[in-house]
Amino acid sequence: MTADRSAPRGRALRSENRRAEILQAAMSVIAERGYRGASLSAVAERVGMTQQGLLHYFPTREALLIAVLEARDEWDTGGTQGGAHAWPLEMWTLLVDYNTTRSGVVQTFSALLGESVTDNQPAREYFAQRYVMVRERAAATLRHEFGERLPGGLTPEEAAPLVVAVMDGMQFQWLLDPDSADMSAAFRHLIALLGEERPQGG
Amino acid sequence: MTADRSAPRGRALRSENRRAEILQAAMSVIAERGYRGASLSAVAERVGMTQQGLLHYFPTREALLIAVLEARDEWDTGGTQGGAHAWPLEMWTLLVDYNTTRSGVVQTFSALLGESVTDNQPAREYFAQRYVMVRERAAATLRHEFGERLPGGLTPEEAAPLVVAVMDGMQFQWLLDPDSADMSAAFRHLIALLGEERPQGG
Repeated sequence: MTADRSAPRGRALRSENRRAEILQAAMSVIAERGYRGASLSAVAERVGMTQQGLLHYFPTREALLIAVLEARDEWDTGGTQGGAHAWPLEMWTLLVDYNTTRSGVVQTFSALLGESVTDNQPAREYFAQRYVMVRERAAATLRHEFGERLPGGLTPEEAAPLVVAVMDGMQFQWLLDPDSADMSAAFRHLIALLGEERPQGG
Repeated sequence: MTADRSAPRGRALRSENRRAEILQAAMSVIAERGYRGASLSAVAERVGMTQQGLLHYFPTREALLIAVLEARDEWDTGGTQGGAHAWPLEMWTLLVDYNTTRSGVVQTFSALLGESVTDNQPAREYFAQRYVMVRERAAATLRHEFGERLPGGLTPEEAAPLVVAVMDGMQFQWLLDPDSADMSAAFRHLIALLGEERPQGG
Protein backbone atom coordinates (compact mmCIF):
# COMPACT_ATOMS: atom_id res chain seq x y z
CA MET A 1 0.00 0.00 0.00
CA THR A 2 2.79 2.36 0.93
CA ALA A 3 4.52 1.73 -2.36
CA ASP A 4 1.26 2.30 -4.24
CA ARG A 5 0.96 5.74 -2.71
CA SER A 6 4.59 6.82 -2.77
CA ALA A 7 5.07 6.31 -6.49
CA PRO A 8 2.42 8.86 -7.48
CA ARG A 9 3.74 11.18 -4.79
CA GLY A 10 7.22 10.92 -6.22
CA ARG A 11 5.85 11.70 -9.64
CA ALA A 12 3.88 14.65 -8.31
CA LEU A 13 7.00 16.03 -6.64
CA ARG A 14 9.08 15.62 -9.77
CA SER A 15 6.34 17.31 -11.76
CA GLU A 16 6.25 20.18 -9.25
CA ASN A 17 10.02 20.59 -9.47
CA ARG A 18 9.90 20.53 -13.23
CA ARG A 19 7.21 23.19 -13.23
CA ALA A 20 9.31 25.44 -10.96
CA GLU A 21 12.31 24.90 -13.24
CA ILE A 22 10.27 25.97 -16.28
CA LEU A 23 9.05 29.11 -14.51
CA GLN A 24 12.61 29.99 -13.55
CA ALA A 25 13.75 29.51 -17.14
CA ALA A 26 10.83 31.58 -18.45
CA MET A 27 11.73 34.37 -16.04
CA SER A 28 15.31 34.40 -17.37
CA VAL A 29 14.20 34.43 -20.98
CA ILE A 30 11.78 37.29 -20.25
CA ALA A 31 14.53 39.24 -18.50
CA GLU A 32 16.86 38.80 -21.46
CA ARG A 33 14.51 39.06 -24.42
CA GLY A 34 11.35 40.77 -23.19
CA TYR A 35 7.74 39.81 -23.80
CA ARG A 36 7.94 39.04 -27.50
CA GLY A 37 11.19 37.11 -27.15
CA ALA A 38 9.69 34.81 -24.53
CA SER A 39 8.42 32.16 -26.92
CA LEU A 40 7.55 28.64 -25.85
CA SER A 41 10.41 27.33 -27.98
CA ALA A 42 12.96 29.66 -26.32
CA VAL A 43 11.80 28.58 -22.85
CA ALA A 44 11.76 24.88 -23.84
CA GLU A 45 15.29 25.15 -25.18
CA ARG A 46 16.51 26.88 -22.00
CA VAL A 47 15.13 24.13 -19.81
CA GLY A 48 16.18 21.29 -22.15
CA MET A 49 12.72 20.08 -23.13
CA THR A 50 10.79 19.81 -26.34
CA GLN A 51 8.06 22.36 -26.93
CA GLN A 52 5.59 19.48 -26.82
CA GLY A 53 6.91 18.51 -23.39
CA LEU A 54 6.52 22.08 -22.16
CA LEU A 55 2.89 22.16 -23.28
CA HIS A 56 2.26 19.28 -20.90
CA TYR A 57 2.93 21.71 -18.03
CA PHE A 58 1.50 24.90 -19.53
CA PRO A 59 -1.11 24.51 -22.27
CA THR A 60 -0.43 27.88 -23.91
CA ARG A 61 2.20 30.60 -23.97
CA GLU A 62 -0.22 32.91 -22.19
CA ALA A 63 -0.80 30.35 -19.42
CA LEU A 64 2.96 30.11 -18.93
CA LEU A 65 3.40 33.89 -18.78
CA ILE A 66 0.55 34.28 -16.29
CA ALA A 67 2.16 31.57 -14.16
CA VAL A 68 5.41 33.58 -14.27
CA LEU A 69 3.56 36.67 -13.03
CA GLU A 70 1.97 34.62 -10.25
CA ALA A 71 5.38 33.29 -9.27
CA ARG A 72 6.79 36.83 -9.27
CA ASP A 73 3.98 38.00 -6.96
CA GLU A 74 4.83 35.09 -4.72
CA TRP A 75 8.57 35.84 -4.68
CA ASP A 76 8.05 39.57 -4.25
CA THR A 77 5.80 39.14 -1.25
CA GLY A 78 7.84 36.34 0.28
CA GLY A 79 4.75 34.16 0.05
CA THR A 80 2.93 36.32 2.60
CA GLN A 81 0.17 37.57 0.36
CA GLY A 82 -2.52 35.60 2.09
CA GLY A 83 -1.13 36.31 5.54
CA ALA A 84 -2.21 38.72 8.20
CA HIS A 85 1.04 40.72 8.16
CA ALA A 86 0.78 44.13 6.56
CA TRP A 87 3.75 45.02 4.40
CA PRO A 88 5.66 48.03 5.67
CA LEU A 89 5.02 51.08 3.48
CA GLU A 90 8.71 51.22 2.57
CA MET A 91 8.47 47.80 0.91
CA TRP A 92 6.07 49.23 -1.67
CA THR A 93 8.52 51.97 -2.56
CA LEU A 94 11.37 49.48 -2.79
CA LEU A 95 9.28 47.26 -5.04
CA VAL A 96 8.72 50.14 -7.45
CA ASP A 97 12.46 50.87 -7.40
CA TYR A 98 13.20 47.20 -8.04
CA ASN A 99 10.81 47.14 -10.98
CA THR A 100 12.93 49.77 -12.75
CA THR A 101 15.67 47.12 -12.95
CA ARG A 102 13.51 44.46 -14.61
CA SER A 103 11.81 45.90 -17.65
CA GLY A 104 11.23 42.47 -19.24
CA VAL A 105 8.80 41.28 -16.61
CA VAL A 106 7.21 44.72 -16.23
CA GLN A 107 6.63 44.70 -19.98
CA THR A 108 5.13 41.21 -19.76
CA PHE A 109 2.84 42.32 -16.94
CA SER A 110 1.70 45.41 -18.84
CA ALA A 111 1.13 43.57 -22.13
CA LEU A 112 -0.96 40.87 -20.47
CA LEU A 113 -2.86 43.49 -18.47
CA GLY A 114 -3.83 45.03 -21.82
CA GLU A 115 -5.00 41.63 -23.08
CA SER A 116 -6.92 40.95 -19.91
CA VAL A 117 -9.54 43.63 -20.57
CA THR A 118 -10.66 41.97 -23.81
CA ASP A 119 -12.31 38.83 -22.43
CA ASN A 120 -9.12 36.83 -22.62
CA GLN A 121 -8.46 33.81 -20.47
CA PRO A 122 -6.56 33.23 -18.23
CA ALA A 123 -5.28 36.80 -18.08
CA ARG A 124 -8.62 38.33 -17.14
CA GLU A 125 -9.12 36.03 -14.19
CA TYR A 126 -5.57 36.54 -12.93
CA PHE A 127 -5.69 40.33 -13.07
CA ALA A 128 -9.22 40.67 -11.66
CA GLN A 129 -8.29 38.54 -8.66
CA ARG A 130 -4.92 40.22 -8.31
CA TYR A 131 -6.47 43.68 -8.14
CA VAL A 132 -8.79 42.64 -5.31
CA MET A 133 -5.83 41.18 -3.44
CA VAL A 134 -3.37 44.02 -4.09
CA ARG A 135 -5.89 46.71 -3.13
CA GLU A 136 -6.57 44.83 0.11
CA ARG A 137 -2.88 44.53 0.80
CA ALA A 138 -2.31 48.22 0.11
CA ALA A 139 -5.18 49.17 2.42
CA ALA A 140 -3.72 46.95 5.16
CA THR A 141 -0.34 48.68 4.83
CA LEU A 142 -1.89 52.14 4.96
CA ARG A 143 -4.09 51.25 7.95
CA HIS A 144 -1.12 49.80 9.81
CA GLU A 145 0.93 52.93 9.07
CA PHE A 146 -1.68 55.64 9.58
CA GLY A 147 -4.81 54.21 11.17
CA GLU A 148 -8.35 54.77 9.91
CA ARG A 149 -7.68 58.18 8.36
CA LEU A 150 -4.52 59.09 6.43
CA PRO A 151 -2.91 62.47 7.09
CA GLY A 152 -3.81 63.45 3.51
CA GLY A 153 -7.48 62.94 4.39
CA LEU A 154 -8.41 59.64 2.73
CA THR A 155 -9.36 56.34 4.30
CA PRO A 156 -7.10 53.32 3.60
CA GLU A 157 -9.76 51.93 1.26
CA GLU A 158 -10.00 55.21 -0.66
CA ALA A 159 -6.24 55.49 -1.01
CA ALA A 160 -5.47 51.87 -1.96
CA PRO A 161 -6.78 52.03 -5.57
CA LEU A 162 -4.69 55.16 -6.14
CA VAL A 163 -1.54 53.40 -4.95
CA VAL A 164 -2.19 50.53 -7.35
CA ALA A 165 -3.23 52.79 -10.25
CA VAL A 166 -0.06 54.88 -9.96
CA MET A 167 2.12 51.76 -9.92
CA ASP A 168 0.47 50.31 -13.03
CA GLY A 169 -0.09 53.58 -14.84
CA MET A 170 3.50 54.75 -14.35
CA GLN A 171 4.79 51.45 -15.73
CA PHE A 172 3.22 52.26 -19.09
CA GLN A 173 4.67 55.78 -19.13
CA TRP A 174 8.07 54.41 -18.12
CA LEU A 175 8.13 51.51 -20.60
CA LEU A 176 7.28 53.84 -23.47
CA ASP A 177 9.75 56.56 -22.51
CA PRO A 178 12.02 55.81 -19.54
CA ASP A 179 13.84 59.13 -19.80
CA SER A 180 10.66 61.17 -19.45
CA ALA A 181 8.83 59.13 -16.80
CA ASP A 182 10.38 58.41 -13.41
CA MET A 183 8.32 55.66 -11.72
CA SER A 184 10.20 55.85 -8.44
CA ALA A 185 9.82 59.61 -8.10
CA ALA A 186 6.14 59.52 -9.04
CA PHE A 187 5.39 56.79 -6.51
CA ARG A 188 7.21 58.67 -3.74
CA HIS A 189 5.24 61.79 -4.61
CA LEU A 190 1.98 59.91 -4.20
CA ILE A 191 3.05 58.44 -0.87
CA ALA A 192 4.02 61.93 0.31
CA LEU A 193 0.60 63.28 -0.72
CA LEU A 194 -1.16 60.47 1.12
CA GLY A 195 0.93 60.50 4.24
CA GLU A 196 2.22 63.96 4.95
CA GLU A 197 0.34 66.56 6.88
CA ARG A 198 1.05 69.98 5.57
CA PRO A 199 0.59 73.29 7.35
CA GLN A 200 -2.12 75.52 5.92
CA GLY A 201 -0.89 78.21 3.57
CA GLY A 202 2.44 76.39 3.02
CA MET B 1 -4.75 75.06 -64.98
CA THR B 2 -7.56 75.67 -62.53
CA ALA B 3 -9.35 72.51 -63.62
CA ASP B 4 -6.12 70.54 -63.36
CA ARG B 5 -5.80 71.51 -59.74
CA SER B 6 -9.44 71.36 -58.65
CA ALA B 7 -10.01 67.75 -59.66
CA PRO B 8 -7.36 66.34 -57.31
CA ARG B 9 -8.63 68.68 -54.60
CA GLY B 10 -12.15 67.37 -55.03
CA ARG B 11 -10.83 63.83 -54.75
CA ALA B 12 -8.81 64.70 -51.64
CA LEU B 13 -11.89 66.21 -50.01
CA ARG B 14 -14.03 63.20 -50.83
CA SER B 15 -11.31 60.95 -49.47
CA GLU B 16 -11.13 63.03 -46.28
CA ASN B 17 -14.91 62.81 -45.85
CA ARG B 18 -14.85 59.09 -46.43
CA ARG B 19 -12.13 58.69 -43.84
CA ALA B 20 -14.14 60.63 -41.27
CA GLU B 21 -17.19 58.51 -42.05
CA ILE B 22 -15.18 55.31 -41.47
CA LEU B 23 -13.89 56.61 -38.13
CA GLN B 24 -17.42 57.49 -37.07
CA ALA B 25 -18.62 54.01 -38.03
CA ALA B 26 -15.69 52.38 -36.20
CA MET B 27 -16.51 54.40 -33.09
CA SER B 28 -20.12 53.13 -33.19
CA VAL B 29 -19.07 49.54 -33.68
CA ILE B 30 -16.59 49.82 -30.78
CA ALA B 31 -19.29 51.31 -28.56
CA GLU B 32 -21.67 48.47 -29.37
CA ARG B 33 -19.34 45.49 -29.56
CA GLY B 34 -16.15 46.42 -27.74
CA TYR B 35 -12.56 45.91 -28.84
CA ARG B 36 -12.82 42.36 -30.11
CA GLY B 37 -16.08 43.00 -31.93
CA ALA B 38 -14.59 45.90 -33.85
CA SER B 39 -13.40 43.89 -36.84
CA LEU B 40 -12.56 45.42 -40.19
CA SER B 41 -15.47 43.54 -41.74
CA ALA B 42 -17.95 44.89 -39.17
CA VAL B 43 -16.76 48.45 -39.77
CA ALA B 44 -16.79 47.99 -43.57
CA GLU B 45 -20.34 46.68 -43.44
CA ARG B 46 -21.47 49.60 -41.26
CA VAL B 47 -20.12 52.13 -43.70
CA GLY B 48 -21.23 50.22 -46.82
CA MET B 49 -17.81 49.39 -48.19
CA THR B 50 -15.92 46.22 -48.94
CA GLN B 51 -13.17 45.26 -46.54
CA GLN B 52 -10.74 45.75 -49.42
CA GLY B 53 -12.03 49.28 -49.87
CA LEU B 54 -11.56 49.99 -46.17
CA LEU B 55 -7.95 48.82 -46.32
CA HIS B 56 -7.32 51.57 -48.84
CA TYR B 57 -7.92 54.08 -46.04
CA PHE B 58 -6.48 52.14 -43.10
CA PRO B 59 -3.91 49.46 -43.92
CA THR B 60 -4.57 47.35 -40.80
CA ARG B 61 -7.15 46.95 -38.06
CA GLU B 62 -4.69 48.37 -35.58
CA ALA B 63 -4.10 51.47 -37.72
CA LEU B 64 -7.86 52.02 -37.84
CA LEU B 65 -8.24 51.65 -34.07
CA ILE B 66 -5.35 54.03 -33.39
CA ALA B 67 -6.96 56.53 -35.75
CA VAL B 68 -10.19 56.19 -33.72
CA LEU B 69 -8.28 56.96 -30.51
CA GLU B 70 -6.66 59.97 -32.19
CA ALA B 71 -10.07 61.19 -33.31
CA ARG B 72 -11.43 60.71 -29.79
CA ASP B 73 -8.58 62.79 -28.34
CA GLU B 74 -9.42 65.43 -30.92
CA TRP B 75 -13.16 65.40 -30.09
CA ASP B 76 -12.58 65.31 -26.35
CA THR B 77 -10.30 68.31 -26.40
CA GLY B 78 -12.35 70.26 -28.91
CA GLY B 79 -9.31 70.28 -31.18
CA THR B 80 -7.41 72.47 -28.72
CA GLN B 81 -4.66 70.04 -27.85
CA GLY B 82 -1.98 72.00 -29.63
CA GLY B 83 -3.29 75.34 -28.42
CA ALA B 84 -2.13 77.62 -25.67
CA HIS B 85 -5.35 77.32 -23.63
CA ALA B 86 -5.08 75.27 -20.48
CA TRP B 87 -8.08 73.04 -19.84
CA PRO B 88 -9.93 73.92 -16.66
CA LEU B 89 -9.30 71.32 -13.95
CA GLU B 90 -12.99 70.46 -13.88
CA MET B 91 -12.82 69.28 -17.50
CA TRP B 92 -10.44 66.49 -16.47
CA THR B 93 -12.86 65.26 -13.85
CA LEU B 94 -15.76 65.42 -16.30
CA LEU B 95 -13.72 63.47 -18.85
CA VAL B 96 -13.18 60.67 -16.34
CA ASP B 97 -16.91 60.68 -15.55
CA TYR B 98 -17.68 60.57 -19.26
CA ASN B 99 -15.36 57.61 -19.77
CA THR B 100 -17.46 55.54 -17.37
CA THR B 101 -20.24 55.74 -19.98
CA ARG B 102 -18.15 54.44 -22.88
CA SER B 103 -16.46 51.22 -21.90
CA GLY B 104 -15.95 50.10 -25.52
CA VAL B 105 -13.51 52.84 -26.37
CA VAL B 106 -11.87 52.71 -22.93
CA GLN B 107 -11.35 48.99 -23.49
CA THR B 108 -9.88 49.68 -26.93
CA PHE B 109 -7.54 52.30 -25.48
CA SER B 110 -6.39 49.96 -22.70
CA ALA B 111 -5.90 46.94 -24.99
CA LEU B 112 -3.81 48.95 -27.46
CA LEU B 113 -1.86 50.54 -24.62
CA GLY B 114 -0.91 47.00 -23.58
CA GLU B 115 0.19 46.21 -27.13
CA SER B 116 2.14 49.42 -27.38
CA VAL B 117 4.80 48.36 -24.89
CA THR B 118 5.85 45.36 -26.99
CA ASP B 119 7.46 47.14 -29.93
CA ASN B 120 4.24 47.28 -31.88
CA GLN B 121 3.59 49.84 -34.57
CA PRO B 122 1.71 52.16 -34.80
CA ALA B 123 0.49 51.82 -31.21
CA ARG B 124 3.86 52.49 -29.63
CA GLU B 125 4.38 55.73 -31.49
CA TYR B 126 0.86 56.95 -30.78
CA PHE B 127 1.01 56.29 -27.02
CA ALA B 128 4.57 57.58 -26.55
CA GLN B 129 3.66 60.87 -28.24
CA ARG B 130 0.32 61.02 -26.48
CA TYR B 131 1.92 60.70 -23.03
CA VAL B 132 4.27 63.60 -23.73
CA MET B 133 1.32 65.70 -24.87
CA VAL B 134 -1.11 64.70 -22.10
CA ARG B 135 1.46 65.25 -19.34
CA GLU B 136 2.17 68.70 -20.77
CA ARG B 137 -1.53 69.48 -20.92
CA ALA B 138 -2.06 68.30 -17.34
CA ALA B 139 0.87 70.41 -16.13
CA ALA B 140 -0.58 73.45 -17.93
CA THR B 141 -3.95 72.92 -16.21
CA LEU B 142 -2.35 72.57 -12.79
CA ARG B 143 -0.11 75.60 -13.29
CA HIS B 144 -3.08 77.70 -14.42
CA GLU B 145 -5.11 76.55 -11.40
CA PHE B 146 -2.45 76.65 -8.68
CA GLY B 147 0.70 78.37 -9.91
CA GLU B 148 4.22 77.01 -9.61
CA ARG B 149 3.56 75.00 -6.43
CA LEU B 150 0.40 73.02 -5.74
CA PRO B 151 -1.15 73.21 -2.28
CA GLY B 152 -0.30 69.52 -1.81
CA GLY B 153 3.38 70.41 -2.24
CA LEU B 154 4.23 69.22 -5.77
CA THR B 155 5.16 71.24 -8.84
CA PRO B 156 2.86 70.97 -11.89
CA GLU B 157 5.46 68.80 -13.64
CA GLU B 158 5.71 66.45 -10.65
CA ALA B 159 1.94 66.12 -10.36
CA ALA B 160 1.11 65.70 -14.07
CA PRO B 161 2.39 62.08 -14.43
CA LEU B 162 0.31 61.11 -11.37
CA VAL B 163 -2.85 62.56 -12.90
CA VAL B 164 -2.27 60.59 -16.09
CA ALA B 165 -1.24 57.39 -14.27
CA VAL B 166 -4.37 57.42 -12.11
CA MET B 167 -6.59 57.92 -15.18
CA ASP B 168 -5.00 55.03 -17.07
CA GLY B 169 -4.43 52.76 -14.08
CA MET B 170 -8.00 53.13 -12.80
CA GLN B 171 -9.35 52.26 -16.23
CA PHE B 172 -7.82 48.78 -15.92
CA GLN B 173 -9.22 48.27 -12.43
CA TRP B 174 -12.63 49.51 -13.59
CA LEU B 175 -12.77 47.46 -16.80
CA LEU B 176 -11.93 44.27 -14.92
CA ASP B 177 -14.35 44.87 -12.05
CA PRO B 178 -16.57 47.96 -12.35
CA ASP B 179 -18.38 47.28 -9.06
CA SER B 180 -15.14 47.30 -7.05
CA ALA B 181 -13.29 50.17 -8.73
CA ASP B 182 -14.81 53.65 -8.95
CA MET B 183 -12.77 55.67 -11.46
CA SER B 184 -14.60 58.93 -10.80
CA ALA B 185 -14.16 58.74 -7.03
CA ALA B 186 -10.49 57.78 -7.31
CA PHE B 187 -9.74 60.65 -9.67
CA ARG B 188 -11.50 63.15 -7.40
CA HIS B 189 -9.50 61.83 -4.46
CA LEU B 190 -6.26 62.45 -6.31
CA ILE B 191 -7.31 65.99 -7.28
CA ALA B 192 -8.21 66.68 -3.65
CA LEU B 193 -4.79 65.42 -2.51
CA LEU B 194 -3.04 67.61 -5.06
CA GLY B 195 -5.08 70.73 -4.57
CA GLU B 196 -6.32 70.97 -1.02
CA GLU B 197 -4.38 72.50 1.80
CA ARG B 198 -5.07 70.75 5.04
CA PRO B 199 -4.51 72.07 8.54
CA GLN B 200 -1.76 70.31 10.48
CA GLY B 201 -2.94 67.63 12.86
CA GLY B 202 -6.31 67.34 11.00
